Amino acid sequence: MKFVEKLIDISRKNNSLLCVGLDTDLEKIPKLLLKDHDPIFSFNQKIIDSTRDLVCAYKPNIAFYEAYGSKGWEALKKTCETIPKEIPIIIDAKRGDIGNTARMYAKAIFENLGADALTVNPYMGEDAISPFLDYENKCALILCLTSNKSAQDLQFFLIDGKPLYEIVAEKVLNWNKKGNCGLVVGATYPEQLKKVREIAKSLPILIPGVGAQSGELESTVKFGTDEKGELAIINSSRAIIYASQEENFAEAAREEALKLRDRINLCRSREAGSFGQTTE
Amino acid sequence: MKFVEKLIDISRKNNSLLCVGLDTDLEKIPKLLLKDHDPIFSFNQKIIDSTRDLVCAYKPNIAFYEAYGSKGWEALKKTCETIPKEIPIIIDAKRGDIGNTARMYAKAIFENLGADALTVNPYMGEDAISPFLDYENKCALILCLTSNKSAQDLQFFLIDGKPLYEIVAEKVLNWNKKGNCGLVVGATYPEQLKKVREIAKSLPILIPGVGAQSGELESTVKFGTDEKGELAIINSSRAIIYASQEENFAEAAREEALKLRDRINLCRSREAGSFGQTTE
Repeated sequence: MKFVEKLIDISRKNNSLLCVGLDTDLEKIPKLLLKDHDPIFSFNQKIIDSTRDLVCAYKPNIAFYEAYGSKGWEALKKTCETIPKEIPIIIDAKRGDIGNTARMYAKAIFENLGADALTVNPYMGEDAISPFLDYENKCALILCLTSNKSAQDLQFFLIDGKPLYEIVAEKVLNWNKKGNCGLVVGATYPEQLKKVREIAKSLPILIPGVGAQSGELESTVKFGTDEKGELAIINSSRAIIYASQEENFAEAAREEALKLRDRINLCRSREAGSFGQTTE
Repeated sequence: MKFVEKLIDISRKNNSLLCVGLDTDLEKIPKLLLKDHDPIFSFNQKIIDSTRDLVCAYKPNIAFYEAYGSKGWEALKKTCETIPKEIPIIIDAKRGDIGNTARMYAKAIFENLGADALTVNPYMGEDAISPFLDYENKCALILCLTSNKSAQDLQFFLIDGKPLYEIVAEKVLNWNKKGNCGLVVGATYPEQLKKVREIAKSLPILIPGVGAQSGELESTVKFGTDEKGELAIINSSRAIIYASQEENFAEAAREEALKLRDRINLCRSREAGSFGQTTE
């Protein structure tokens, strides 16, 4: 099954465009978990158990696991194994390297971790992306316009009057021969998100920056979704998983996830009428 | 001690601008090592033992370790521990992400692995780089012009008549407030390397692409070094570490490393007269 089909299936089943980012940090998880054998995994498992019917994807950020070396990698692998098979796993890795190296990253992320998708950096061009695209049922979500302030350092450069991020979006359309590319556009740049969605009408777009980074939700949903109100993967990490530092952290995460999913669906229903029944 | 000082010290002691890339692949190392408890580490250890007096740095490519999951990470960590303290370790990671994530990558690479430098992608701009620069004695080598063919997809775009890779070089000069930035420029683009060295007169430049990727050595040395014939880190990976598949692989790697170091030094001596005594 293609990534996009898997994404749409769970998105409809859970009536959700919400992706929960697993940026799991030992310094931020409830202290009571630190006595566990593998606190990172314990935390993730409980977050996943309490939100699995509310999401369209999980997005572990690999940096948070690598910071703890091989133990972190084990925690990440176990996390990937515990995510229900019907829910896509997006590894936020922002990789990008020459062909033989990219093949090793693909092996690490698609084979060793068993993930469905990863984020990829476009600076090195097509041959640094294509080894990921050899996996037809996986997906490479290519950085187009990132949510951070310094995105403006390079991504807004005008090339023959057109900003670099738009050119990246156009290039990705060309690279998408097997239908397994997507884009990453930050919620912090709504006007630009609109433009990218116009260029890439049928690509999945991963949209970070609505939570701790406070992008505007209404415009994110309006401009980020496709014409059916789908294919936007709206990520929130810290605002959900660290909703509480206490014993009730998993319930608190569920509440935040539910709230955000429903707010997203409310925006969808305003947009399209036919979407966004808020089921529980 | 600053990274650049460490680099110059060992570079003078070993009379070498050669960096050996540790792209260690279980499918390419001698079969006889596969019975070892940790074949990747065994291989690296022997390569390091046989080349440590010939190099100015080692560059493990992290993708090759991640492909083997937590075991790969362990092998990489042990490899970093076995590299003599006086030789800089450059992790080829091409990372780049928003601030809180970049901090986790810095922790992974500078603290968990204990490396001296890493390669970084500039697409996300300064705030994705600065967490690495908070480590004053470490170094961020920022992708400027990469050695692959598709580098041309983005890096040659003209912005007000100036190619993107030149603008990146100029930006890195501005980001270099603590003196711990460097650049990555492929040997496969000699004219452009010349231009980048003119812009960044005193930055270390990591130059991949002279080995299996066959960049031209003479121009690499001529254009890549600074005015003292130093600060170029000329990398070769596959051509050295896979020189032989037999029991003599470490000796074969030494021979190739020695040959390339001396060829580099010959080019340096042609350039400057005062460099490149080929010691053994």
